[in-house]
Amino acid sequence: MKKVKVKSHATVANLVCGFDILGMALNDPYDLMEVKLLERPEVIIHNKDGFGLPEEPEKNVAGVVFLSVMGKMNNGIGFEVEMHKQIKPGSGLGSSAASAAGAAAAADHLLGNIFPKEDLVRFAMNGEKLASGVKHADNITPCIYGGVSLIRSIFPLDIISLPAPDLFVTVIHPQIEVKTSDARQILKKQVLLKDAIRQWGNIAGLVTGFLKNDLDLIGRSLEDVLIEPVRSILIPGFDEVKAKCKEAGVLGGGISGSGPSVFMLSRDRHTASEAEKAMKDVYDRIGIGYHTYITTINKTGVEITGE
Amino acid sequence: MKKVKVKSHATVANLVCGFDILGMALNDPYDLMEVKLLERPEVIIHNKDGFGLPEEPEKNVAGVVFLSVMGKMNNGIGFEVEMHKQIKPGSGLGSSAASAAGAAAAADHLLGNIFPKEDLVRFAMNGEKLASGVKHADNITPCIYGGVSLIRSIFPLDIISLPAPDLFVTVIHPQIEVKTSDARQILKKQVLLKDAIRQWGNIAGLVTGFLKNDLDLIGRSLEDVLIEPVRSILIPGFDEVKAKCKEAGVLGGGISGSGPSVFMLSRDRHTASEAEKAMKDVYDRIGIGYHTYITTINKTGVEITGE
Repeated sequence: MKKVKVKSHATVANLVCGFDILGMALNDPYDLMEVKLLERPEVIIHNKDGFGLPEEPEKNVAGVVFLSVMGKMNNGIGFEVEMHKQIKPGSGLGSSAASAAGAAAAADHLLGNIFPKEDLVRFAMNGEKLASGVKHADNITPCIYGGVSLIRSIFPLDIISLPAPDLFVTVIHPQIEVKTSDARQILKKQVLLKDAIRQWGNIAGLVTGFLKNDLDLIGRSLEDVLIEPVRSILIPGFDEVKAKCKEAGVLGGGISGSGPSVFMLSRDRHTASEAEKAMKDVYDRIGIGYHTYITTINKTGVEITGE
Repeated sequence: MKKVKVKSHATVANLVCGFDILGMALNDPYDLMEVKLLERPEVIIHNKDGFGLPEEPEKNVAGVVFLSVMGKMNNGIGFEVEMHKQIKPGSGLGSSAASAAGAAAAADHLLGNIFPKEDLVRFAMNGEKLASGVKHADNITPCIYGGVSLIRSIFPLDIISLPAPDLFVTVIHPQIEVKTSDARQILKKQVLLKDAIRQWGNIAGLVTGFLKNDLDLIGRSLEDVLIEPVRSILIPGFDEVKAKCKEAGVLGGGISGSGPSVFMLSRDRHTASEAEKAMKDVYDRIGIGYHTYITTINKTGVEITGE
């Protein structure tokens, strides 16, 4: 029986100013999945982690991705998967995207690598639709491609891989719940044109910073005048974490995806550690539990780690 | 008596999706100025063109730039200038920026090249303030630097030069008046977040296209869902010009600055000529006079052509 093991990485969507269009893959944390090809049109899910996610295929992010691949193939195949998730659902680190992208990549590998990466994004977007109600691609794309991804447009899908800088990433996941759907709901449907102009200046600066490997420019451009001021209200301690991390010398950072995780980019491991200390101090004082990660930008995308 | 001749180029602000943050310099048309350094704090302006612009320094775009340089120097110097403008005021081709940038560059040259280019932009912005009521820099910056400019932020000023592609530019200036201040007034102060997201996807795509010299990506990204739908109402024939030029094979294009000029980018001179024909056809039929230019992107910025 054909089977495959995949490693599917956490991702940071938005990258501060690039709401819905930018995302970046991290080396830690990551999910592991073991997928078998079945010769009958069925999806079987075994959750081997403690997150209590649904195992009915139609209600499971990986499940709906397998179903959409099966729908496309229409040749009587199916999939059985063991999920070993390590990216906590609701962390803002692309947990559902890791399941969706991992499922798409595993299915493709089992079928003989017949789909271009763009199609894997399309399959995986069905999983995101289930998880958040929206077919967004800013976690899935970097999860599949690795590095930093620009999604210029979703309909039609237009993906551009940007060079990823050799930066260190400090992440703190405070143990509070922020639902993606809530984080989307509280956004204003209208924004001031002058704020939008400031935002797209920063986006253009950030993208240029990645393409020129200009770390100062990346730092100056990591400013979000539209989304962060609204969403950060849902994250206790956010302003202080950011201020303290800046003092510690980080280039910049902000909310990871829709939160509650917060990430900071640093030029070196020492600064990344100082940022971690600053983050921990804030949440220790507030009295909220947390997980932290010091990691780097993943450049491979979802990995096939065994057959 | 020290004197200098400068050549100051037309510019296309906004570049379709990059409202207020992107601009590009053209080789045609351009202004010529002859500037003398005076040993008394006075500004004397002689208009040698037929545009009837004011000659009182405080009411003249170049005049206020000279005054701001004099204010900075505070050493009893002055300037006498002969203006030979060829960029028609109100064309949307950066006529006031050419005067302002030319004045700043000429003054700096006469003073021994003491200011960095960024300071020339700051001086010249005073001229734009006089012309349009707003200190915008998306014409001045490419006029001074040449090529394609990204103005990430105006306060503080953050200018990034982007690589300019070897494209042909077709411009039509229909002989109607669109005041920059009017074109700014009709814009909505608020925009839909979803439209802003589409816009910044395109801006990120366009900037990436310039940096990677990816002409297809430049073409796909030349879409403006926010400003063009509003401003194009002021330009008769706009939609048809655009449609016909696309049929002729241009990469894309739109309103130059606040209009009424319209520009189109093409890979080769033949397509640029076909676009010119299509533009002329539309305005011949509507019965509006015009000037057209087929040119390329200027990469030098304002030029010192004689002493």
